[in-house]
Amino acid sequence: MKERIYRIVEKGAHGSKGNLIFDYAIMLLIIANTFAIFLETFPSISSAYKSFFNLFEFISVIVFSIEYSLRLYVSDLTYPSSSRTKSLLKFIFSPYAIIDLIAIIPFYLPFLIKIDLRFIRILRMMRFVRLFKISRYNSSLNLIWIVIKEKKSELTVTGFLAFLILLVASFLMFHVEGNVQPEKFPNLFSSFWWAISTLTTVGYGDVYPTGVGKIIGAFISVLGIGVVALPTGIIGSGFMEKIGNKKHDSEYCPHCGKKIK
Amino acid sequence: MKERIYRIVEKGAHGSKGNLIFDYAIMLLIIANTFAIFLETFPSISSAYKSFFNLFEFISVIVFSIEYSLRLYVSDLTYPSSSRTKSLLKFIFSPYAIIDLIAIIPFYLPFLIKIDLRFIRILRMMRFVRLFKISRYNSSLNLIWIVIKEKKSELTVTGFLAFLILLVASFLMFHVEGNVQPEKFPNLFSSFWWAISTLTTVGYGDVYPTGVGKIIGAFISVLGIGVVALPTGIIGSGFMEKIGNKKHDSEYCPHCGKKIK
Amino acid sequence: MKERIYRIVEKGAHGSKGNLIFDYAIMLLIIANTFAIFLETFPSISSAYKSFFNLFEFISVIVFSIEYSLRLYVSDLTYPSSSRTKSLLKFIFSPYAIIDLIAIIPFYLPFLIKIDLRFIRILRMMRFVRLFKISRYNSSLNLIWIVIKEKKSELTVTGFLAFLILLVASFLMFHVEGNVQPEKFPNLFSSFWWAISTLTTVGYGDVYPTGVGKIIGAFISVLGIGVVALPTGIIGSGFMEKIGNKKHDSEYCPHCGKKIK
Amino acid sequence: MKERIYRIVEKGAHGSKGNLIFDYAIMLLIIANTFAIFLETFPSISSAYKSFFNLFEFISVIVFSIEYSLRLYVSDLTYPSSSRTKSLLKFIFSPYAIIDLIAIIPFYLPFLIKIDLRFIRILRMMRFVRLFKISRYNSSLNLIWIVIKEKKSELTVTGFLAFLILLVASFLMFHVEGNVQPEKFPNLFSSFWWAISTLTTVGYGDVYPTGVGKIIGAFISVLGIGVVALPTGIIGSGFMEKIGNKKHDSEYCPHCGKKIK
Repeated sequence: MKERIYRIVEKGAHGSKGNLIFDYAIMLLIIANTFAIFLETFPSISSAYKSFFNLFEFISVIVFSIEYSLRLYVSDLTYPSSSRTKSLLKFIFSPYAIIDLIAIIPFYLPFLIKIDLRFIRILRMMRFVRLFKISRYNSSLNLIWIVIKEKKSELTVTGFLAFLILLVASFLMFHVEGNVQPEKFPNLFSSFWWAISTLTTVGYGDVYPTGVGKIIGAFISVLGIGVVALPTGIIGSGFMEKIGNKKHDSEYCPHCGKKIK
Repeated sequence: MKERIYRIVEKGAHGSKGNLIFDYAIMLLIIANTFAIFLETFPSISSAYKSFFNLFEFISVIVFSIEYSLRLYVSDLTYPSSSRTKSLLKFIFSPYAIIDLIAIIPFYLPFLIKIDLRFIRILRMMRFVRLFKISRYNSSLNLIWIVIKEKKSELTVTGFLAFLILLVASFLMFHVEGNVQPEKFPNLFSSFWWAISTLTTVGYGDVYPTGVGKIIGAFISVLGIGVVALPTGIIGSGFMEKIGNKKHDSEYCPHCGKKIK
Repeated sequence: MKERIYRIVEKGAHGSKGNLIFDYAIMLLIIANTFAIFLETFPSISSAYKSFFNLFEFISVIVFSIEYSLRLYVSDLTYPSSSRTKSLLKFIFSPYAIIDLIAIIPFYLPFLIKIDLRFIRILRMMRFVRLFKISRYNSSLNLIWIVIKEKKSELTVTGFLAFLILLVASFLMFHVEGNVQPEKFPNLFSSFWWAISTLTTVGYGDVYPTGVGKIIGAFISVLGIGVVALPTGIIGSGFMEKIGNKKHDSEYCPHCGKKIK
Repeated sequence: MKERIYRIVEKGAHGSKGNLIFDYAIMLLIIANTFAIFLETFPSISSAYKSFFNLFEFISVIVFSIEYSLRLYVSDLTYPSSSRTKSLLKFIFSPYAIIDLIAIIPFYLPFLIKIDLRFIRILRMMRFVRLFKISRYNSSLNLIWIVIKEKKSELTVTGFLAFLILLVASFLMFHVEGNVQPEKFPNLFSSFWWAISTLTTVGYGDVYPTGVGKIIGAFISVLGIGVVALPTGIIGSGFMEKIGNKKHDSEYCPHCGKKIK
C-alpha cells in the first residue's frame, strides 16, 4: 500500500500512469490558484465571488495538505536512510518540502494566532510560493543551476563591483544634486535608487540628473553596459565549458591509446 | 508547360533568369504593399488617394492570388509524392503557403460574409503577414533557427524562471504599493505590467514604485540583468557549438589524407 | 623631396619622428575642431567669440586643405600603380580621402554657389566627419570589422527578423491604441517609433500602451531580450572563432607530421 | 615583535587566527562607516545623533590611522627590498595604500588648512573610497581584471566607435531638434546627454526627439544594441580563452605521462 502511494505521489520514481495523472492534477490546481490570486485583486470580482474564492481556497489547501502528508508518509522510501526519523527530517528540510509547507501554513495560522488581519494579508503572499512547486517537475533547469553555481565566485565579484559603483555613484550624485533637486535627491537612499535605475538601464525617468550631475549620470549609464556585459560573458563561457566537457568526454591519449577523461 | 511554370514560380529550384525576375517582382509588390499600409494610416493621404489605394489593393490581391494558384498547380513537382492529393495537402499546409493564403483571404471575405466593417479592419491586419513571405527567400536564418531549436529547453526554463520572478514581483509590489498608489497599481495585472517593464529594462516610467516598493523595484531591476545574461549566454554557446561541430565534423590531413579528429 | 613629404604625411609608411609629429598635430587640430563645434552651439559663447571661431575655422580648413593636397601629390607613392592617373583615382576614391574631402569642401562651397545659408548650415554638419579621420590612426578596429563582416549574414537576418517584429507590432498597436490614444498613436509611424523604443528597451516613456495594448507591449518588451541576445551571441561566437583560428595556426598532422594550417 | 605585527596586519601572509580577526574587524568598521554615511544624509537622523556620528568618525579615523601606521611600519617585510626607504616608497605608492591614505586624510585636513567648509564637505566624499578596501580581501576579481586587461584594445576601440556615434548623433540631433525643442536641446551638450541616454538604452524620457528627429533616435536606439553586443561578445570570448588556456596549458596523459597538447 505504502509502496503504491509512493509510486503515485513521488514523481520521477516510476513514471507510472497514476503518477502522471496525480502530477498534472496538482500542477493544474497550482495554476488555478495563481489565476484566483490575480482575479481576487480586482475589487469588483473579489466582492461578487467572495464565497467562491473562499471555497476554492479551502479546497486547495485541503488538497495540498493531503499531498504534503502523503509525501511525509512515504519519506522513508524517498530518502532511504538508517532511521525513520532521519528520513522524515531529510524530507521536511528539503527545499521543495519547505516551499510546500510555507504554501499551506498561512491558511492554518489565522485560527491559531489572534493578530492584525492586515498582517495576515501580507503573510498570505507566501501562498504565492505554491507556484514554485512547478519547478520541481522540470529537470532542465539543472544545467542552468550548475553553470550559475560554477561561476558563482565570478558573478559575486561582478555583483560586488557593481555594488561599489552604485555606492560611489549615489554618494557623488547626492552631493552634486542634493542641493539642486532636494525633492528628488532628499537622502542617499533616493540617490541609490536613481543609481540602480540607471546602472541596470531601466531608466524610469522619475529621477534624473540635471546640470553637472549629467556627467556622473553619463558615466553610470556607460558602466551599465559593462554591468550587463560581464555577467553575460561569464555565463556564456560557463555554458561553453559545459558543452566542451561533454564533447571531450571520451578522449584518448594519442601515445598510449588509453582513455583520458 | 507545367515544368516551365514550376521553374519560374518555385525559387531555389533552378535559379533561372525567369525565376529571378518573378521573385523580385513579388518582393517589390510586398514592399509596396507595406508602404501602402503605412501611408493609409495618415487620414489626409488616405482620403485624398482613396481610389488609388483601393485599386492598388485590388491589383495586389489579384497578383498574389495568381501566384498562389500557380504554386498550388505545380505542387506535385515541388513536393514529389505518391498521390496528387498528398502533394496538394503538403503544399497547402506548408508554413509559407498558410501565410500566403492568410495574406489574401481577408480581401475575399467581405463579399462572402456580411459583418461589421470595423471587424474586417482588424482582420485586414493579417494582410501584413504578406511581409513574412520575404523570409522564404532567405536561407541564412536557418542557422539561427537551428540554434534556437537546439537550445529550446534551456531557453524555455529561463523564460519560465523569468515568468515566476514576474509573478512573485508583481504580487509583492501589489501588496506594497496597492494602497500607496491605488491609481497606478489598481490590480495584479497593472502590477504585472510594471514588473515586465522593469525586468526587460524598458522602464517607460508610467508606473514606478515609491517608498518601500523601491526595494522590490531594485531587486527586479538587478534580476533584469540576469534575464538578459542567461539567454544571451545560452544562445552564444549554441552558435559556438555549431561552429565547433562544423570544424570538427570531418577533418582530414591534406598531406596524408588520414582523419585527424 | 617628394619621397620626404611622403614619409611625413603618410602614416605607417616609415614611422619617422617627422611623421609622428605631423600625425599628432593633425589629430590635435581635429579634436580642437570638435571642441569648437560644441562651444559654438552655446549662443552666448558663439556671439562673444564669433571672430575667433571664424578665424579658427579658416586656419583649420587651410591646414586640412594643404594636408589633402600633399597626400594627393604623393599618391603615386602611396598607391604604386601603372600610371599616375590610376594612383590619383585610387587615392581620391579611398574611403578616408573621401571623408577628408567632405570635411573641407563645405567651407569652399558658399563662395561658389549662392544658396540659402540655412541649407549650408546643415551641409556644414559634414564638417563633423572630420572626426572620423582619427579612426585612420587606429588599426585595432580591424578585428572587430572582420568579425562583423564574417557574421554579416547572420546579423542581417537578425536585423530583418527584428524589422518584421517591429512592423507587425506597430501595426497591431496602431489598430489597438489608435482609437484609445489618438494623440499618441496618430499614424503607423508613431506606432513604429513606439515599437523601436520598446524593442531596443530604451523606453523613453513618451508613448506607452494602455489597456489591451499592454499585452502587445509586454510581448515586444520580452522579444527585446531576444533582439539583444541574438546579435550578442553571434558576435561572441565570431570573436571565439577568431581566437580558435589563431590558436590552431600551427597545427601538425599527428600521422605524417606535416603542417596542416 | 615586528614579525608578529606583520603576521597580524598583512593578510595572506600567514593566515593566522590573529590575522583573521584583525581583517574581519577592519571590514566590519568599513561597513559600519558606509552605513553611517548613508544615515547621516537624513537631516532628522543627522541632527539628532550628531555627537554620536562625530564620535564614530573620530574613532574610525583613529583605528584606520593606526592600521595604516602599522602597515607602514612592517612595509620592509611586505616588500623585501635592498633598502628601508625603497620598501617604504613601494608601500606608500601601492594602489591600496593610496586608497587607505585618501580615506583618512580628509579628517586631518580641516585642522591644517582654513578653507570654506562646503569645499571640505565635497572633499569628504573621498572618505567613501574607504569602501574600496574591501576589494583588497577579494582575490577572485583577478580573473575579471585579467580578461578586461587582455581585451583592453578591443574594448577601447568599441568605446571609441561608440563615442564617435555619440558625437555624430548629438550633432545631427542638435541641428534637427535645436529649433523645434530649444528648451530641451539648447546646446550640443544637452544633445550629447540625450545621445548617451539613448545609446546605453537607459532612456529616462526627460529628453526625446519629435518629428524628423525620431528617425535619428531610431537609428541610435538600434545601434545601442550593437554597443551592448560588441563588448559582451569580446568579454565572453576573453573568458572562454582563459578557460581554454587553463585546459590546454599543460595536459599530460594520466597513464603514460606524456604531454598530449
